[in-house]
Amino acid sequence: MTNLPGIVITGASGRMGQMLIKTVLDSDKAKLVGVVERTGHDWVGRDVGACMGGADVGVSVTDDALAAFAQAQAVIDFTAPAATVEFAALAAQARAVHVIGTTGMDDEHLAKLNAASRHATIIRAGNMSLGVNLLVQLTKKVAAALDEDFDIEVIEAHHNQKVDAPSGTALMLGEAAAEGRGVDLADVRDSGRDGITGARKKGDIGFTAIRGGDIVGEHDVLFAAAGERIVLRHLATDRAIFARGALKAALWGQGKAPGEYDMIDVLGL
Amino acid sequence: MTNLPGIVITGASGRMGQMLIKTVLDSDKAKLVGVVERTGHDWVGRDVGACMGGADVGVSVTDDALAAFAQAQAVIDFTAPAATVEFAALAAQARAVHVIGTTGMDDEHLAKLNAASRHATIIRAGNMSLGVNLLVQLTKKVAAALDEDFDIEVIEAHHNQKVDAPSGTALMLGEAAAEGRGVDLADVRDSGRDGITGARKKGDIGFTAIRGGDIVGEHDVLFAAAGERIVLRHLATDRAIFARGALKAALWGQGKAPGEYDMIDVLGL
Amino acid sequence: MTNLPGIVITGASGRMGQMLIKTVLDSDKAKLVGVVERTGHDWVGRDVGACMGGADVGVSVTDDALAAFAQAQAVIDFTAPAATVEFAALAAQARAVHVIGTTGMDDEHLAKLNAASRHATIIRAGNMSLGVNLLVQLTKKVAAALDEDFDIEVIEAHHNQKVDAPSGTALMLGEAAAEGRGVDLADVRDSGRDGITGARKKGDIGFTAIRGGDIVGEHDVLFAAAGERIVLRHLATDRAIFARGALKAALWGQGKAPGEYDMIDVLGL
Amino acid sequence: MTNLPGIVITGASGRMGQMLIKTVLDSDKAKLVGVVERTGHDWVGRDVGACMGGADVGVSVTDDALAAFAQAQAVIDFTAPAATVEFAALAAQARAVHVIGTTGMDDEHLAKLNAASRHATIIRAGNMSLGVNLLVQLTKKVAAALDEDFDIEVIEAHHNQKVDAPSGTALMLGEAAAEGRGVDLADVRDSGRDGITGARKKGDIGFTAIRGGDIVGEHDVLFAAAGERIVLRHLATDRAIFARGALKAALWGQGKAPGEYDMIDVLGL
Repeated sequence: MTNLPGIVITGASGRMGQMLIKTVLDSDKAKLVGVVERTGHDWVGRDVGACMGGADVGVSVTDDALAAFAQAQAVIDFTAPAATVEFAALAAQARAVHVIGTTGMDDEHLAKLNAASRHATIIRAGNMSLGVNLLVQLTKKVAAALDEDFDIEVIEAHHNQKVDAPSGTALMLGEAAAEGRGVDLADVRDSGRDGITGARKKGDIGFTAIRGGDIVGEHDVLFAAAGERIVLRHLATDRAIFARGALKAALWGQGKAPGEYDMIDVLGL
Repeated sequence: MTNLPGIVITGASGRMGQMLIKTVLDSDKAKLVGVVERTGHDWVGRDVGACMGGADVGVSVTDDALAAFAQAQAVIDFTAPAATVEFAALAAQARAVHVIGTTGMDDEHLAKLNAASRHATIIRAGNMSLGVNLLVQLTKKVAAALDEDFDIEVIEAHHNQKVDAPSGTALMLGEAAAEGRGVDLADVRDSGRDGITGARKKGDIGFTAIRGGDIVGEHDVLFAAAGERIVLRHLATDRAIFARGALKAALWGQGKAPGEYDMIDVLGL
Repeated sequence: MTNLPGIVITGASGRMGQMLIKTVLDSDKAKLVGVVERTGHDWVGRDVGACMGGADVGVSVTDDALAAFAQAQAVIDFTAPAATVEFAALAAQARAVHVIGTTGMDDEHLAKLNAASRHATIIRAGNMSLGVNLLVQLTKKVAAALDEDFDIEVIEAHHNQKVDAPSGTALMLGEAAAEGRGVDLADVRDSGRDGITGARKKGDIGFTAIRGGDIVGEHDVLFAAAGERIVLRHLATDRAIFARGALKAALWGQGKAPGEYDMIDVLGL
Repeated sequence: MTNLPGIVITGASGRMGQMLIKTVLDSDKAKLVGVVERTGHDWVGRDVGACMGGADVGVSVTDDALAAFAQAQAVIDFTAPAATVEFAALAAQARAVHVIGTTGMDDEHLAKLNAASRHATIIRAGNMSLGVNLLVQLTKKVAAALDEDFDIEVIEAHHNQKVDAPSGTALMLGEAAAEGRGVDLADVRDSGRDGITGARKKGDIGFTAIRGGDIVGEHDVLFAAAGERIVLRHLATDRAIFARGALKAALWGQGKAPGEYDMIDVLGL
C-alpha cells in the first residue's frame, strides 16, 4: 500500500471534493495523503472522514497546500479559476501531477496554466468522463461527414444550482462540431433564442440549456436535416464518473513529461 | 354531397393552406367551396387543383373573400393577424363559422376578434391537434398536484424556418403550468438562458427552443425534482393533424351560438 | 425525539434496506428502532451503522422480527413475497403499520395479505414514488380520453441485475391503461416481440424492457397515432425517492383503520 | 434531359414504389423510363401519374420487366425476396445497375444475388439513408472503444403495420456492435425479453421493438455503464430519405464494375 501514488484533493468540502475523496479512499491503485481547504474553513485541522460524517480515515484537512502537495504524486483540483492558477504553481514546485477539472477559466488563467506547464505535468479537461470525451470525438467526425443541410444543435440539461449556460461540456461539443466543419464557433454560435429570432441561419450551431432538479449532466448533439436526424447523446447519472476519470488521469500522468494534456490523451481515444 | 357543409380556405398557397385544401378535398363530411389568396397572387383565377400540381378540382382561387365566404358554412384561416382580423369581420357578415389557427396575435387583434364574436362563431386555438390540447390539460393538472420542489421546463423543437421562440404551443403549455400553480406566467417566465445566469430561481418556468431540419413540432413539459422527473411529451410528425383538427372544429361549430371557442370545447376534453 | 414514530426496517443488508435505514436516520419525523435480517446473516448482533461502513447509530441488527416489531409503530419491508407474508402476520400481532414495497407476489401471497389486513393496516405499492403514482393516474385518464387509433406501448429501462421483465411498475401502468380503455390487460398484453410477429393488433398494449448499466428505473407510456404521439414519462434517478415514499406511507398510516391501502391513498392523488 | 440516366421502378403501387417514382420524377439528375407492376394489377397499361392520382407523366405501367429494364440504366427495387431474385437476373441481362432495398432475404436468396453480381452491378442495403449508414459506422467504432462494462442495447420503433421484429436496420446495428467487439451477434443476441429472464448476461446485445402509429423508423444504440450512458440515435421522419438514397445509389453505380456494393460504398463513408 505504501508504494501507491499519493493523492491530494483540493476543495475538500464541496460536492465534487467529497466525491473525489471517497473515490481515492475506495481505490486500490492510489492512496489519499492530503486534503486541502481554505484557511478559516471549519473542516481545517479535523479528520476528513469525520468531517464527511463517517469514521476517521487518518487524514487531516489542511490549509497549507504546498506542504500537502509536497507529500503527493498528484493533486486533483475541481475548485475555481483563481485558486487553480495558484495551485498550479505550487504543484509545479512540489513536482506533483496537477489534474484540473475546474471550469470557467478565461484567457489570462489559461496563459498562467500554460506557463506552469513548462515545468509541470498538467492534465485539464472540461469533463473527465470517458463517455463525454468519446462523444466529443464522434461529434467532430459526424460534423465533418455531414454537410450544412444538417443543422447542428447542442442541448444540455443540468441541476437547478448550475450558474452558467451553456455548460462547459456543451461548448466543448460545439467546438468539436465547428472544428469538424472547419469553421470558428464564435462565428456560428446561436444561444439564448428568445422572441422574434427570424429563421435559423444555415451553418449556425445552436445551444439550449435546460435546468431542473438534480440532473447530473445530459448532453445531446443533434444533426437535423429534412426527413432524418442523428443524435449523439451522453447521460451522466453519477458524479462518481468524473471522480474516477480524474483519478485515472492522475495515475496516467505519473512519469509523463511536463506539458498540457487532456482526457483524450489519458483515454487513448 | 350537396348537403355537406361548404368550407373556404384562406391563404391557399401556403404550406398549411395547401394541407387544409387537401384535407377538405379528401373528407366525406365537408366540401371545398372556395379558396382565397391575396390580390395579385398568380394563383388567383386558376383552378386550385392545378395550382397545387394535380388535376383540376373545380374550385377557382379568388381574391374576393366576402363573395367566397357568402357561399360557405365555415372559413378555415391560418394566415397572419392583420388578415385574420379582416376575415373575422367578413365571416361574421357572411354568417360563416370562423376557425382560426393564426398565431402571433397581440391584444389589439384579440380585442377585434372578441368584438366580432358577438355576432359570429369563432373557434381559435394556438394548436389544433388532439394531442396538444390533451397535453395542455395534463400539464395544468400535474402542475397543480406537484409543489415547487418540481422545477418546470417547457422544451420545444421546430423546423429551421420558424421565426419565433418559444413556440405559441410552448407558451400555451407554460400558461397551463402557471395556472395549475396559481401564478402568473409573466412573473415566472425564464427564457433565453445564456451566460452567467445564476442558479435557477425556485418557481420559475423555463423555456428552451431547439431549431433544425423539418421538425414539425415537439413539446416536452418537464417536472424535475431531486431523484425523479416526470415528462409530458407531444410529437407532431405530420401537419395533417392540425388540418384535421381545424376541419373537425369547422364541423363542430355548425349551429353553435355566437362566441369564442377553443379546441378544448371542440374535443370535449 | 422520543415521541417520534418508531420504524423497523427488514432486509437490512440489501440495497433498498440500506437506503431505507439511511432515510429513517436522516428524517426528523421518525426514528429507527429496529433492523431485521435473517438468522445466520453476519450483520445480526452488530450495530447497523457499523455494518454499513459508518459510525455506530445505537441500533443492533436482530433476527427476532416479532420482538423488533413490538417496539415499533411501523415496519417498512422491501424483501421477498414469502418473507413479507410472514412479516404481515407479525406486524398485525404487534399492531404496527406494515408498509410493503415487495414485488412479485402471486395470488396466494395476496390472499394472505388480504387476510392479515382485517386486523392490520397494510400499505402496499409496486412503486412508492410520487411521480410514478401520478403517472399511473394520468395513464388511466389519457387512455380513457383517446380511442384505439392511438396504439399504447409501455417502455421501461432498468439496471442489468433486474431479473424480471416487464417491471412491476410497467405492468401497473399497463393495468391503468387497460382500465382507462375498459379492457382486461390479460386480453391485450403484447410483450416479448421477436421474429415474424405480424402487424400490430389494434387495441393491444405493448411492453418492451431495456436492460443496462445501473439505470434506476425509467418508464414511458406511449400513445401513438397517425401523425402524432403523446408520451407520459417517469425517470427515477435515485432510489431514495422510493425510501422517502415508504417513510411517508409509514407516517400517513399512523392511526388509520385496518385495511389495505396504496400510494394513491397516501399521496391523496 | 435525354442524356440523363433512365430509371425503372418496380413494385410501383406500393408505398415505397410511389415514393421512388415521385423522387425520380422530381430529380434533375435522372429520368423515369419505366414502371413495373405484377401481371394482373389494375395499374398495368395505365399512365403511372394518373394511377397515383395526379396528371399524366408519359410513362405507362408495364408487367414486362425485361422490356422495361432494357430501356434503363438502373432499376430500383423495394419489393420482396423472390421477385428481387428474378429481377436481378433480368437486370444483369439488360446490363442495368440493380439497386435493392428489399429486406427479409434468406441465405438462398443471397446466394442467387451473389451469382448475379458476377455479371451485374448490384447495390444492396437494409437501409438507404445517409444517417443510418453513418450510425452503423459510429456503432462499430464506439463498441470497439468501450469494454463490456458498457451494456449494449438496440432499441427501435416502427409503425403498427410492420410484421417483423427487430427491424433489419436494428439487426444491422447489432451486427456492427458485435463486429466492433469482435464477437458473433448470434452468440450474444438477446431479444424478446419477457417473464423471469434472470440478470442481464454480460456481453449480450439486447434488442427491443416498439410498434405504434405511423412511426417511419427510429433506432437507438444504447451503451450503458455504471453512472453514464452513450446513445447513438437515428430518426427517419420521411420515407423520401430512403428513395433519395436509392436514387443516389443508382447514379453512383453507373460505370462501376460488376459486383456487390452497399451504401457505405455509395456514401464514401
